[in-house]
Amino acid sequence: MKTYEEMSLSELHALEAVTEEKLAEVRGKGLAIDMTRGRPSAKQLDLGDGLLTVLTTGEDCMSESGFDCRNYGVMEGLPEAKKLMGDILGVPAENVIIGGNASLSLMFDTVSRSMTHGVCGSTPWSKLHRVKFLCPVPGYDRHFAICEYFGIEMINVPMTPEGPDMDIVEKYVSSDEEIKGIWIVPMYSNPQGYTCSDETVRRLASLKCAAKDFRIYWDNSYGIHHFYDEPENQDHVLNIFEECAKMGNEDLVYEFCSTSKVSFAGGGISAIASSQANLDDHRQYMKFQTIGYDKVNQLRHVKFFRNLAGVKKHMSRHAAIMRPKFEMVCRILSEELGGCGICSWTTPRGGYFISFNTMEGCAKNVVAMAKGAGVKLTEAGATYPYHRDPYDSNIRIAPSLLSLEDLEQATEVFVLCVRLVSLRKVIDEKKAG
Amino acid sequence: MKTYEEMSLSELHALEAVTEEKLAEVRGKGLAIDMTRGRPSAKQLDLGDGLLTVLTTGEDCMSESGFDCRNYGVMEGLPEAKKLMGDILGVPAENVIIGGNASLSLMFDTVSRSMTHGVCGSTPWSKLHRVKFLCPVPGYDRHFAICEYFGIEMINVPMTPEGPDMDIVEKYVSSDEEIKGIWIVPMYSNPQGYTCSDETVRRLASLKCAAKDFRIYWDNSYGIHHFYDEPENQDHVLNIFEECAKMGNEDLVYEFCSTSKVSFAGGGISAIASSQANLDDHRQYMKFQTIGYDKVNQLRHVKFFRNLAGVKKHMSRHAAIMRPKFEMVCRILSEELGGCGICSWTTPRGGYFISFNTMEGCAKNVVAMAKGAGVKLTEAGATYPYHRDPYDSNIRIAPSLLSLEDLEQATEVFVLCVRLVSLRKVIDEKKAG
Repeated sequence: MKTYEEMSLSELHALEAVTEEKLAEVRGKGLAIDMTRGRPSAKQLDLGDGLLTVLTTGEDCMSESGFDCRNYGVMEGLPEAKKLMGDILGVPAENVIIGGNASLSLMFDTVSRSMTHGVCGSTPWSKLHRVKFLCPVPGYDRHFAICEYFGIEMINVPMTPEGPDMDIVEKYVSSDEEIKGIWIVPMYSNPQGYTCSDETVRRLASLKCAAKDFRIYWDNSYGIHHFYDEPENQDHVLNIFEECAKMGNEDLVYEFCSTSKVSFAGGGISAIASSQANLDDHRQYMKFQTIGYDKVNQLRHVKFFRNLAGVKKHMSRHAAIMRPKFEMVCRILSEELGGCGICSWTTPRGGYFISFNTMEGCAKNVVAMAKGAGVKLTEAGATYPYHRDPYDSNIRIAPSLLSLEDLEQATEVFVLCVRLVSLRKVIDEKKAG
Repeated sequence: MKTYEEMSLSELHALEAVTEEKLAEVRGKGLAIDMTRGRPSAKQLDLGDGLLTVLTTGEDCMSESGFDCRNYGVMEGLPEAKKLMGDILGVPAENVIIGGNASLSLMFDTVSRSMTHGVCGSTPWSKLHRVKFLCPVPGYDRHFAICEYFGIEMINVPMTPEGPDMDIVEKYVSSDEEIKGIWIVPMYSNPQGYTCSDETVRRLASLKCAAKDFRIYWDNSYGIHHFYDEPENQDHVLNIFEECAKMGNEDLVYEFCSTSKVSFAGGGISAIASSQANLDDHRQYMKFQTIGYDKVNQLRHVKFFRNLAGVKKHMSRHAAIMRPKFEMVCRILSEELGGCGICSWTTPRGGYFISFNTMEGCAKNVVAMAKGAGVKLTEAGATYPYHRDPYDSNIRIAPSLLSLEDLEQATEVFVLCVRLVSLRKVIDEKKAG
């Protein structure tokens, strides 16, 4: 098979004509498929329905220690909820505080607090001339949006299959006091599905930082979101909490997670895990911001999942739904675009996304063309700070929400769009060159 | 009956001896009664247990428009939840945004946002030399705590049975650009149980403010928390939202409420109601802070209460539990302390608190003495900014949590402490003078 580059102009034009015809056919179908966000499918949500009936009477609402979860109190979260979330993260319960229905809010509030009150006694960031964050790219748009909202300057750091490029991270962090944080999705990253290697975690845990108030924002959203049950087919990430402790760097990391993609999306519970010094900072904010989060829902989660083993069993049921979707998308991409020399993509073993790279300057056109054919993708550029993909190349594919049938159709449309936009680019270049 | 002032030294000493004896008796009982906070009692919480079973299947979790509440989306809250909360506040649904489990967080976040981003385009408060809030006193400690956390200077404004002293409010607000807000609990205020008169509301709605970013923080926590079913025995407050509109002052007010003292305390839903300009400001923050709040819980509330009539019926059941408690406390205070000339207290027709004033300089001693006798009261001074009651006189009584039996005992202990501390003060003064 020839790559597009190797094809003659007439071969390219012939393929263009075929592709255009197929796309016209698709347009006639009037599809309306939305794969913009990483939403769980209804079948996945059904797995959590037991949450709805696990507490049915006032007596059910008593915590292990006999506390009535329907009333005020226990600001940091139920001890049993702290234990459960701690077990998920591999962190002792006393290093965990339970948040509301989204870890995003915990991250936002942590940045917001740093703006108004600094970090463990440092100067409030709003009083500084400039604050910067390192942003491994492509990455999660909502992380970048928080920085943008607070006027934090974002510096792109290339992602590798081992995690962020640590040579660059170390250089920046050690030399620039204005750099106060780095966003990291350590396992099954958004959008690539990459997992930080042991070396990356160790180098992160031993960072020497110019800024004392530098922190790693460790967004462990997909830490238990494997597609395969066999350990050898799962990614593994070193426990950053323990690695930091070994290096005497306990305060370096804030770890975040939630059950949004475990129980109900937006109806789950969240947690922050960190050193006592960092948690004290958090408490100092929290005690003014809230009377504590919904303990009834915390108790629902504890009673429904019981323990880490229960959570893992549950995630295996999610995997059974997710696995065929991701396998199908990767298979179609492989069959239809493999060897064309016009694109690349990741093949994650967990998480919620596939990262797809078109030829330079094609991503926006692909997304626009797919939209025209009834398939909404995540906006091109969204995976970069300020929505600026310097190569206009990255597209995030979010297979989770759709049925297998819709997903197949959407992927086929996507393939046609990638092919057509790439063909036209190659044709133009050949003509010009 | 003589006031203490009118008694002779020997009469006072005789009464002191009797009171000391009674108190010693009480101490022997080893009471451990906590009435520090306005928590609902278990019986009240039981009223909401229907919430636990109103959604039991995935199908139940579909909103009126067919949206699956178990998934991401609908950031501002379910339309039917906005309608319910709007009806409670007397505000159109489109002027309502649903928050998390506590209106306190909405208030905190609103101040936090004003610090970092200003108000509808104004200079962020963190960039200003000084920011001040008016604080009607005595008032709600958590309001004052938010100001203190953000370094906002608090100015005491006396509360009257009609609401804050409006002559003072108008003078400050019209002349001082640094004043950016006022905290108001318009109905059954914390701690007095006072309700703003029509004139107060009208004067508030027509405030001419030196600062364009001045806002009224209208914390309508107890807007439906009557003790009596008959309208003539209920307080009423003018609709500030409508009054502001009449005066062309739509942007002047943020209204907050929650179901914490309607359904479950800390397990309910909250809302902010305001003008579109103010809500746009809120949206601009919210879309970075959250993926939206727990819609499953929103739907639970909508399905359980159905509508405003359902809420009112429910509140009447709360009233049946609260009423005898408040009536008993007021009766005991009247019988035991009426006519002594040493104290005063309020007799609210709704809300959660009674405000009690001792002679000057006695509140801390009363609270300490009660604690020694096994009855924990809200810390003296808590009802004032910076915990500084200039008269050391105000004590907040919170009858809700206790059983009638415990409450009776606690009130009797309280009476003994007030009597003894006051007697000693009068004796000392008589001796000195």
